[in-house]
Amino acid sequence: MSGHVIILGGDGFCGWPTALGFSQAGYDVTIVDNLSRRKIDIELECESLTPIQPILRRIKAWNKLTGKTVDYVNLDVAVQYHKLLTLIEDTRPTAIIHFAEQRAAPYSMKNSFCKRYTVNNNINATHNVLAAIVESGVDTHLVHLGTMGVYGYGTAGMPIPEGYLKAVVEGAEGPKEIEILYPANPGSVYHMTKTQDALMFYYYNKNDGLRITDLHQGIVWGTNTQETMRDEALINRYDYDGDYGTVLNRFLMQSVIGHPLTVYGCGGQTRAFIHINDTVTCIKMAVENAPKRGDRVQIFNQATETRTVRDLAEIVAEQTNAEVRYYKNPRREDAVNQLQVDNTKFLELGLKPTTLGNGLMQEVIDVAQKYIGRCDTSKIITDSLWSKEMEVDTRGSSTPYEE
Amino acid sequence: MSGHVIILGGDGFCGWPTALGFSQAGYDVTIVDNLSRRKIDIELECESLTPIQPILRRIKAWNKLTGKTVDYVNLDVAVQYHKLLTLIEDTRPTAIIHFAEQRAAPYSMKNSFCKRYTVNNNINATHNVLAAIVESGVDTHLVHLGTMGVYGYGTAGMPIPEGYLKAVVEGAEGPKEIEILYPANPGSVYHMTKTQDALMFYYYNKNDGLRITDLHQGIVWGTNTQETMRDEALINRYDYDGDYGTVLNRFLMQSVIGHPLTVYGCGGQTRAFIHINDTVTCIKMAVENAPKRGDRVQIFNQATETRTVRDLAEIVAEQTNAEVRYYKNPRREDAVNQLQVDNTKFLELGLKPTTLGNGLMQEVIDVAQKYIGRCDTSKIITDSLWSKEMEVDTRGSSTPYEE
Repeated sequence: MSGHVIILGGDGFCGWPTALGFSQAGYDVTIVDNLSRRKIDIELECESLTPIQPILRRIKAWNKLTGKTVDYVNLDVAVQYHKLLTLIEDTRPTAIIHFAEQRAAPYSMKNSFCKRYTVNNNINATHNVLAAIVESGVDTHLVHLGTMGVYGYGTAGMPIPEGYLKAVVEGAEGPKEIEILYPANPGSVYHMTKTQDALMFYYYNKNDGLRITDLHQGIVWGTNTQETMRDEALINRYDYDGDYGTVLNRFLMQSVIGHPLTVYGCGGQTRAFIHINDTVTCIKMAVENAPKRGDRVQIFNQATETRTVRDLAEIVAEQTNAEVRYYKNPRREDAVNQLQVDNTKFLELGLKPTTLGNGLMQEVIDVAQKYIGRCDTSKIITDSLWSKEMEVDTRGSSTPYEE
Repeated sequence: MSGHVIILGGDGFCGWPTALGFSQAGYDVTIVDNLSRRKIDIELECESLTPIQPILRRIKAWNKLTGKTVDYVNLDVAVQYHKLLTLIEDTRPTAIIHFAEQRAAPYSMKNSFCKRYTVNNNINATHNVLAAIVESGVDTHLVHLGTMGVYGYGTAGMPIPEGYLKAVVEGAEGPKEIEILYPANPGSVYHMTKTQDALMFYYYNKNDGLRITDLHQGIVWGTNTQETMRDEALINRYDYDGDYGTVLNRFLMQSVIGHPLTVYGCGGQTRAFIHINDTVTCIKMAVENAPKRGDRVQIFNQATETRTVRDLAEIVAEQTNAEVRYYKNPRREDAVNQLQVDNTKFLELGLKPTTLGNGLMQEVIDVAQKYIGRCDTSKIITDSLWSKEMEVDTRGSSTPYEE
């Protein structure tokens, strides 16, 4: 393994372990980050449960431990186009891994500022990367972290294919089979931006021949990877709040502090999941299996299992004796949905999934127990509502919801 | 006819005649414009062939002629969110008509600045309008000017339906019919932004119940409407340059100054057309036939006929004895395509199309002849290329292309 990778958003929850994973594997790594996620911590008055170290201190600790160097550039990808262009021209990376987007659906629905920030940041970040690759003339491979949520959790009851859908339409001479980008059905402003990203990938691939892989990722759980657990100074973020905390990590945290597990609605929503270790593994596989010039956008489903939220809560409750409590759902979504996901491509590349049964839930519980003193319990319930008319129903939804 | 309409981009080529059309019909009209199109004139060093008057002078002339008042607010819709929100709250418009986007495909491909400006302006403008309508709580109707170009000029050889496509997919229990947004296949960065707009309309309609009409418009030809021809101070823009001039207006201008008609490629590209008079008529029809709360996004094809570029050139050549000359195509597109457009909805609402045979081409020729002294012939050929590798072939493409 060798080559140079630029990791946009390399200070974040997925970005940081990915940066260390690539460094460990022998790549030269440049992290690009404007530290926006840390700044949102300040805005939301809620920090990572784990004591993450400042970016330069993290990088220094990694260097001390392994002798490996990771570069860091503070750059706002959505704004500082020419600095990004110069970086690509100077480093001529094998791959650019793009995590530089606002990634919480509840945050993207909080208010008009958050909606507008999410759209402006995510669309301009993605478009700047694409325009800069074209302008640089560097034949790099863009690997983008997308989301399973672009699919809208199932159409027509069939397993979700990997990005493209075969359909039969009426043609001039009778029925004709076509293959199209899976029809987008986003569930939040955040998810909407990822569907808009997909159109940009489609266009820049078609017009400029850019080599692009889009990873439609499930909900990530777990905290640390082999690399981030090597030293406390390398520890990864752990978000437990109602906006940024992903559902399983939130449940595990809640169980540790003795809070009931907060299921929204009846818990019949089915979601796809992946462990943070597998995220890093999949991204390495994607980089090492780049599309060739002339190939269409390569789309992988990056998820290893599906569960209902109620199932998850019951699994956690069983392990920890926590109580499960149902709350009114602040999201506008179907109460119950089926979801099957085709993830053949990563399995064929050799992925050995880390599933919920693998015992790694204990790692998350251990982390939560260790840092319990840093938890602000008032942050566990989201106050982001999906639309105005829900205000009457659910604002202050820490009162339980009776079905 | 009554009510209040806000016209975003109401100083532009479609916006200005629409503003006067609504004022004449009895609506209260507020024009919102940041004059960006006039500023691009300065950047491109090419003005409207017609001597358009400054916005306040135009409005004053209209008032003097008709006694009607049109309000004007200088506001950048993509940037000044709170000013837009306040305007919506204060005026509580019946409809908001949204033209506030960079609308030239060649300009959107000129260089990375123009690509980035087009994406940033168009996406943020549309999203700000949507977020502001939601935040205001005003039950208004958003009418957006989209483009036929989102369809990518034909899939599977069938007539282009009005926005939605019926398709059969494999479901869990065998084949299942679904109806989806027509799969987007944009041909430029500009067209790409309109496909991204469509996703925002889909989402805000689904999540917030916004009432939205998206008009997929063909290429506009003609200069003046009944209103703009009433006084020279009301005259509409006429773009003849390689970036902003639409194809028929360019041909007519070229014939007047004795320049060969500039057909790119073999001229086999089929396009959909509409006269500027019909644009205004259609937008009035759309406003007066608003979707109800709960309806999905209403999509109309706003085009009255289809022609190949070669056909158009021949029609103009016949009327004016101009020579037709073929140039290498700076666009990345199919050399030949079929295009049939379903425009049943406007026909059912009573539209009587102004077609190329209706004699209104003479109006454009008259305008071109009258202002011939204002023409800069060096601006007739575009130097916007669709991708880098075309540079060798076509830069300086004023040398004719031999097939």
